Amino acid sequence: MNFLVSNDDGYLSPGVRVLATRLKRLGSVTIVAPDRDRSGASNSLTLSRPLRPRLIEPGVWAVDGTPSDCVHLAIQGLLPEVPDLVVSGINHGANLGDDVLYSGTVAAATEGRSLGLPAIAVSSTAHVPQHLDAAADVVADLVGRLVNHPLPALTLLNVNVPDLPADQLKSMIATRLGRRHPSSGIVRDADPRGREIFWIGAAGEGADAGEGTDFAAVAAGHVSVTPIQFDMTRHGVMDAVSHWLA
Amino acid sequence: MNFLVSNDDGYLSPGVRVLATRLKRLGSVTIVAPDRDRSGASNSLTLSRPLRPRLIEPGVWAVDGTPSDCVHLAIQGLLPEVPDLVVSGINHGANLGDDVLYSGTVAAATEGRSLGLPAIAVSSTAHVPQHLDAAADVVADLVGRLVNHPLPALTLLNVNVPDLPADQLKSMIATRLGRRHPSSGIVRDADPRGREIFWIGAAGEGADAGEGTDFAAVAAGHVSVTPIQFDMTRHGVMDAVSHWLA
Amino acid sequence: MNFLVSNDDGYLSPGVRVLATRLKRLGSVTIVAPDRDRSGASNSLTLSRPLRPRLIEPGVWAVDGTPSDCVHLAIQGLLPEVPDLVVSGINHGANLGDDVLYSGTVAAATEGRSLGLPAIAVSSTAHVPQHLDAAADVVADLVGRLVNHPLPALTLLNVNVPDLPADQLKSMIATRLGRRHPSSGIVRDADPRGREIFWIGAAGEGADAGEGTDFAAVAAGHVSVTPIQFDMTRHGVMDAVSHWLA
Amino acid sequence: MNFLVSNDDGYLSPGVRVLATRLKRLGSVTIVAPDRDRSGASNSLTLSRPLRPRLIEPGVWAVDGTPSDCVHLAIQGLLPEVPDLVVSGINHGANLGDDVLYSGTVAAATEGRSLGLPAIAVSSTAHVPQHLDAAADVVADLVGRLVNHPLPALTLLNVNVPDLPADQLKSMIATRLGRRHPSSGIVRDADPRGREIFWIGAAGEGADAGEGTDFAAVAAGHVSVTPIQFDMTRHGVMDAVSHWLA
Repeated sequence: MNFLVSNDDGYLSPGVRVLATRLKRLGSVTIVAPDRDRSGASNSLTLSRPLRPRLIEPGVWAVDGTPSDCVHLAIQGLLPEVPDLVVSGINHGANLGDDVLYSGTVAAATEGRSLGLPAIAVSSTAHVPQHLDAAADVVADLVGRLVNHPLPALTLLNVNVPDLPADQLKSMIATRLGRRHPSSGIVRDADPRGREIFWIGAAGEGADAGEGTDFAAVAAGHVSVTPIQFDMTRHGVMDAVSHWLA
Repeated sequence: MNFLVSNDDGYLSPGVRVLATRLKRLGSVTIVAPDRDRSGASNSLTLSRPLRPRLIEPGVWAVDGTPSDCVHLAIQGLLPEVPDLVVSGINHGANLGDDVLYSGTVAAATEGRSLGLPAIAVSSTAHVPQHLDAAADVVADLVGRLVNHPLPALTLLNVNVPDLPADQLKSMIATRLGRRHPSSGIVRDADPRGREIFWIGAAGEGADAGEGTDFAAVAAGHVSVTPIQFDMTRHGVMDAVSHWLA
Repeated sequence: MNFLVSNDDGYLSPGVRVLATRLKRLGSVTIVAPDRDRSGASNSLTLSRPLRPRLIEPGVWAVDGTPSDCVHLAIQGLLPEVPDLVVSGINHGANLGDDVLYSGTVAAATEGRSLGLPAIAVSSTAHVPQHLDAAADVVADLVGRLVNHPLPALTLLNVNVPDLPADQLKSMIATRLGRRHPSSGIVRDADPRGREIFWIGAAGEGADAGEGTDFAAVAAGHVSVTPIQFDMTRHGVMDAVSHWLA
Repeated sequence: MNFLVSNDDGYLSPGVRVLATRLKRLGSVTIVAPDRDRSGASNSLTLSRPLRPRLIEPGVWAVDGTPSDCVHLAIQGLLPEVPDLVVSGINHGANLGDDVLYSGTVAAATEGRSLGLPAIAVSSTAHVPQHLDAAADVVADLVGRLVNHPLPALTLLNVNVPDLPADQLKSMIATRLGRRHPSSGIVRDADPRGREIFWIGAAGEGADAGEGTDFAAVAAGHVSVTPIQFDMTRHGVMDAVSHWLA
């Protein structure tokens, strides 16, 4: 099995390296990842300028672009063969609830799924994870299950792993995305030259973090596995909209 | 009614100006838009640096950030009052099918909806539209309908208007998102210094462009109105995934 | 006479517009300027990606690059004719002493001079100038003098104009560059997510601001005109270095 | 002796690593360098946003900024002690003649000199150097000479080393900067979406590459050592300018 591994923290991130090392026990692995931290890039694709992938070492490409750029390049012609499966991560920091909308980690997996490959996005709940090996083992386990039970088109797995030693991790459970409270308001400040600046505020806490959500799962020590999709049509309201357009 | 208007082509784009002018007949309008073209930005939010919104003229802010940044800033504290409705566009160029995943136009509307406001994303099918007035009239019409028939949470409208004179536009119809073929492969080239570069290829044609899709609607001269959502949980496969995780 | 006008504050800056309007009385004028604020860009040239100049209105190009890029593009093929003279400015804020090393305003003029054209860089001492017309009149006056008295190769004029009404401006005097004290130390801070950030400190006050310097001239209400050069060889120490290398 | 080592190719460049390793024989060494290739950055300083230096490994900082940013941060507060000497390089590719105006390698050294430290910029003539060790030995030799024979204020050394084995390198000679022909014209092209783009053309060949220049020295296999300065006042024309301003 040929794995394409990417992320949004950059090719030097410990998370992507531990993941690649673990997956090598299952097949061949190529990392194609941003040349620097591109967290929060969402699905953005770089169309206005060319990209310059660099082969840093055998099996490791660094790209001056977004996570989606990396996976797109890799599958659409950079690599000699189309890979069998895309894994994005291990992100340093959770991607729960609405985070998935902004997440470059999820975007890299989405790009792979959009191009027809099975895909997994995986995040550790810690910003400085201590137990990446345990999270990598979780991915290896999931890969086997996913290959045996393919998901429908436009559907992938978003996995969050509590940063715990393997023997303290509870079981993997299927979850739905919760919801965060809106971020705190924007932060007004001044730069050292006295000019006004604004920062986007920190992300909010879980608002819908109840039973069945990804928030609840990781809070209880479980590995959260959320099937997510990017068929964005809201089929359920189609009739109503048709009616009020008429 | 207070409108927040944004886009991804930048605050100087004719599309956003024509839209704002038209909506002023319905209420007060503030433009908060990127200071330059940010097409393809998707939902990316700028967290790594502060933003510097500039009041260019009364009611027009330019922000050195993404479309999502603009709407986030506007609602979370830049403007004195939270607006009543967010309209993003009029984009120069269609946003059909998978385009919505990458679109900054849709992202600006999504950010508004995520923060609780009704939201519309609107695109003209032409890259150099000749009939922006007609498209703006469509938006004005839709605003009234949307206010009277609120959509569920996490749901907004993605509207594509053929670039035709008002009297040649066919009716508004509710559509589902179609699908594009994958883009053509990456384009290898060399820069003037002889170094290899890669471009992301052009977007593919409609693959699922049949009956009921947004592609089919605009091809037939209709205004396509797609209810889209960003609850990304794939509820339909939850039981299956639970089963194979067990 | 054909003027090429550029700056580093961007093509929308009042300074560049007032300058262009004034120079139109002397000949034809084309603005080729950055599409946004590129202050502090120094002489950087964009080699890693292509540029996309946009004709915003007749005679006004906006470029997604640095001030040096703008002048380079304009002279090396964007414009139908090579211009006769390059004027960069009117910058909002002084460019005195060591500022010239970092200044995009000076860099645009340097690029023009490097490509063989006479060149003037001009700055108003105010960040929000009130008397741009007076500064533009100074430039118009200097243009005539410069054309009649060409400077040696690799030499141009760096002009700083106090932000005063024309009738309060004292005479133009030739000055040498003074020196600033080093900027205040770097400013440590934290972003809203608690991560450490560092700002470059504000520029220092004049350290060598005495008799004959540009600092002293503008402080006294004079227009400072400094002949600057970019032959960077330190000829005076060549023998000493030869000696200690032997 | 405490060395600060920087460059413009990024902290991962072999050139900067070989240089740091060699200088460790002479004292303690800290690398503070860009997190990616910033060639052509000239003296630009990042004032519009904060910087995020990351300690990659003991003694190695990567900065999301320009070469000048790196040296400025290092000296103005990032490092516990102000270093004794700044060495920038070993650049992959020559910095000859007018190159110094645009060079980030030279800019890093200039920033150090501007803040009062002796400084050396060093480049290998090859884009993929095979003999970095020989070039590093040259630097180690020069360091001793420079410390014994300090240069005047605002003066530093720009060194270009032919990419040859140590035993084939000819002597170090003091040179003046030559001049390049202007670059070839801009290159018009189209991106894969059919939109017009422009590339800055490749640098020109040596125009003044005669006796005594840096071009001539390296062509003959010598190590070129050019004393360069950034007192940009053109003192020699001051009287003339005073006269025609009067």
